[in-house]
Amino acid sequence: MKKYFAEFLGTFMLVFLGTSAVVIAKGNVLAIGLAFGLAITVSAYAFGGISGGHFNPAVTTAMVINKRIGIGDAIFYIIAQVIGAAAASAFVLYFVDALKLSTTALGQTDFPKIPTVTAIVVETLATFLFLMVILNVTSENHGNSDFAGLTIGLTLAFLIIATLNLTGGSLNPARSFGPAIFAGGSGLSHLWVYILAPELGAILAAICSRFMGTEK
Amino acid sequence: MKKYFAEFLGTFMLVFLGTSAVVIAKGNVLAIGLAFGLAITVSAYAFGGISGGHFNPAVTTAMVINKRIGIGDAIFYIIAQVIGAAAASAFVLYFVDALKLSTTALGQTDFPKIPTVTAIVVETLATFLFLMVILNVTSENHGNSDFAGLTIGLTLAFLIIATLNLTGGSLNPARSFGPAIFAGGSGLSHLWVYILAPELGAILAAICSRFMGTEK
Amino acid sequence: MKKYFAEFLGTFMLVFLGTSAVVIAKGNVLAIGLAFGLAITVSAYAFGGISGGHFNPAVTTAMVINKRIGIGDAIFYIIAQVIGAAAASAFVLYFVDALKLSTTALGQTDFPKIPTVTAIVVETLATFLFLMVILNVTSENHGNSDFAGLTIGLTLAFLIIATLNLTGGSLNPARSFGPAIFAGGSGLSHLWVYILAPELGAILAAICSRFMGTEK
Amino acid sequence: MKKYFAEFLGTFMLVFLGTSAVVIAKGNVLAIGLAFGLAITVSAYAFGGISGGHFNPAVTTAMVINKRIGIGDAIFYIIAQVIGAAAASAFVLYFVDALKLSTTALGQTDFPKIPTVTAIVVETLATFLFLMVILNVTSENHGNSDFAGLTIGLTLAFLIIATLNLTGGSLNPARSFGPAIFAGGSGLSHLWVYILAPELGAILAAICSRFMGTEK
Repeated sequence: MKKYFAEFLGTFMLVFLGTSAVVIAKGNVLAIGLAFGLAITVSAYAFGGISGGHFNPAVTTAMVINKRIGIGDAIFYIIAQVIGAAAASAFVLYFVDALKLSTTALGQTDFPKIPTVTAIVVETLATFLFLMVILNVTSENHGNSDFAGLTIGLTLAFLIIATLNLTGGSLNPARSFGPAIFAGGSGLSHLWVYILAPELGAILAAICSRFMGTEK
Repeated sequence: MKKYFAEFLGTFMLVFLGTSAVVIAKGNVLAIGLAFGLAITVSAYAFGGISGGHFNPAVTTAMVINKRIGIGDAIFYIIAQVIGAAAASAFVLYFVDALKLSTTALGQTDFPKIPTVTAIVVETLATFLFLMVILNVTSENHGNSDFAGLTIGLTLAFLIIATLNLTGGSLNPARSFGPAIFAGGSGLSHLWVYILAPELGAILAAICSRFMGTEK
Repeated sequence: MKKYFAEFLGTFMLVFLGTSAVVIAKGNVLAIGLAFGLAITVSAYAFGGISGGHFNPAVTTAMVINKRIGIGDAIFYIIAQVIGAAAASAFVLYFVDALKLSTTALGQTDFPKIPTVTAIVVETLATFLFLMVILNVTSENHGNSDFAGLTIGLTLAFLIIATLNLTGGSLNPARSFGPAIFAGGSGLSHLWVYILAPELGAILAAICSRFMGTEK
Repeated sequence: MKKYFAEFLGTFMLVFLGTSAVVIAKGNVLAIGLAFGLAITVSAYAFGGISGGHFNPAVTTAMVINKRIGIGDAIFYIIAQVIGAAAASAFVLYFVDALKLSTTALGQTDFPKIPTVTAIVVETLATFLFLMVILNVTSENHGNSDFAGLTIGLTLAFLIIATLNLTGGSLNPARSFGPAIFAGGSGLSHLWVYILAPELGAILAAICSRFMGTEK
């Protein structure tokens, strides 16, 4: 039970800190990328000792494929992540409403400037790279467990910066789900892209990383 | 005595670096968040070996509840923190005055755009999350003592960025006290919000974190 | 084979995260410097355990001179780095094209404001300093292997910030090669500067660092 | 001899990365603070194993007072630091001239907006706080040697941000000396302030830190 709460809390931190940086702080691209990325870093060091620190259904998928977690646990992890993301977006909605800002802009992800197929390529590539870093830096064979939290968070930060103007930089189905259910619109109708593509990238990385010797 | 001086110095660093980034450097939201947060990081690594590195009455409250510090020490910790914050704001006032800037803008916290009850929710939630990270990352059961200072500081940085446009992002009664006593106005008349809400968030986190197994 | 793939991936990360920060995110100078630099940091912690984490032909050259890697491996490292950089730029071209941005601005390096000889001095000096840090921080005699990844990445970040308005801040023949072959123009015709000068700086550092006792 | 070269190189890095961020990159206040501060961080991890990583005559003074270094070595450290700073400013002058920018703006420190006595208070206070962090985080009794380099650099970064609009944020006689001798003007005629005040702050911190138990 503790580990599901850890996944809830970490995903709450990710969506709360990340989307608040977008819609409440209106930070620049560096502030936004670092808010999402370093939310993962701090949650990994604080709660990762309990749950392993996934905070992302695509990460959990890759960990299932590479047998680092069982399928039963994985399902509860993903449920906890999705609830954590939604809870964070509920608070952001409440605060955005208090500030009299638009309640249809909650930091949801979308791709207004590029075709759907390109958006799928962007999110698949970015999540593939993200998982390659995660699976290697947490590898017992050649990783670095001390710096894993910092490495994973900084990787997410700069992958989001690279893709923010393309797809909003999700790499995480739960992160896209939270704001989309409250904001509606094309963020919600395009949600399938942010489930499909990150999961695809994660699956590719799980296979590819084994070639690099990440698993025992 | 050494540990009270350590708490004085760390809280001085927090208020001096943080509020100077606001009123003297006029930095953007990222610079302000990092100034407050990383002031805690550096003080934790430099002075935390002496006092444990609270630098915040709400943190000290949570540590008392979870029996990591005695009530007697805690009172002197809080006194040292409040004096440290006030001393830092006295220097900021002197420098702001030398620059011929407004001496009623000293980086005090306030919530001009939102109702009082929302401000209480913001500060309670943010301090709850802050303490959940602190109590877990410093837990002897599943924390990470090496990276605790970095984790705690980065958490504060991005919680402040998330809440800066709502309440000024205090999460710390002493941090709000220092500038308010020199600046006066609604920063001072609203000071009770910045005492009540962070303490409430800290108490909730102290209870909730025990469910996660943070204590022995 | 694994180590060549590690060099491919790390150099891909460098060029993808760095040049995307320039042309897709249009970040400020701090965001750009940190994107390039921290791409090296995260790749070093994730993939450095496999290949040593060069991601740069000039680094590989210095490692050959100081006998930390054999000449045979070095050739394949450099081939993998160049292919990784070109693959990253191919993706950036695809995304830039989808955004209907200029396909001749792919984050290539050039020096429109200064004479060629000054550009050579800039890149030689910056790469010399970069390699002095790398060779010392990874020295078994007096280095710090835990913090090497962070140190090397932050050094690159701020050397790029220092030289961005002079030469674009390459310090890496592969990083300049990737975008130049797709963008053409003076970024391609000046490519020889970004091969010659970083290699020269690396050779000088390899010799000079031995005077500091970096090698056994 | 190696350790004097290490001090030369680290101080070169500080002045080159820091003042280039000001005059060549024209970065914002966060970029400037981090450029100076993280130059110290990376030099500490790369070269600190050789010399201890002072890179600042005020730091060397405090280390002499607290008997962590002998007076003979200290004199050569300070000479190496001053030469390193001047060499860095010579390169910055060459690059600024190539860019056709003003050769009287080389990132020198000055205090055009405040009285001399206030400038002395600013630099004394900031250097006092800087040395309190340095002496405690490197203390064998209660410091943290792994994170010392990061802690010291981040402290410098945010102390510079706090004081940039007051005195330019020097905290280091060598850092002020380098640009001043090439830029001339009031940066040179006010150089005595940047020697006197940092040395005074360092002496106060050396005495005060002993009360905190930093020395054996």
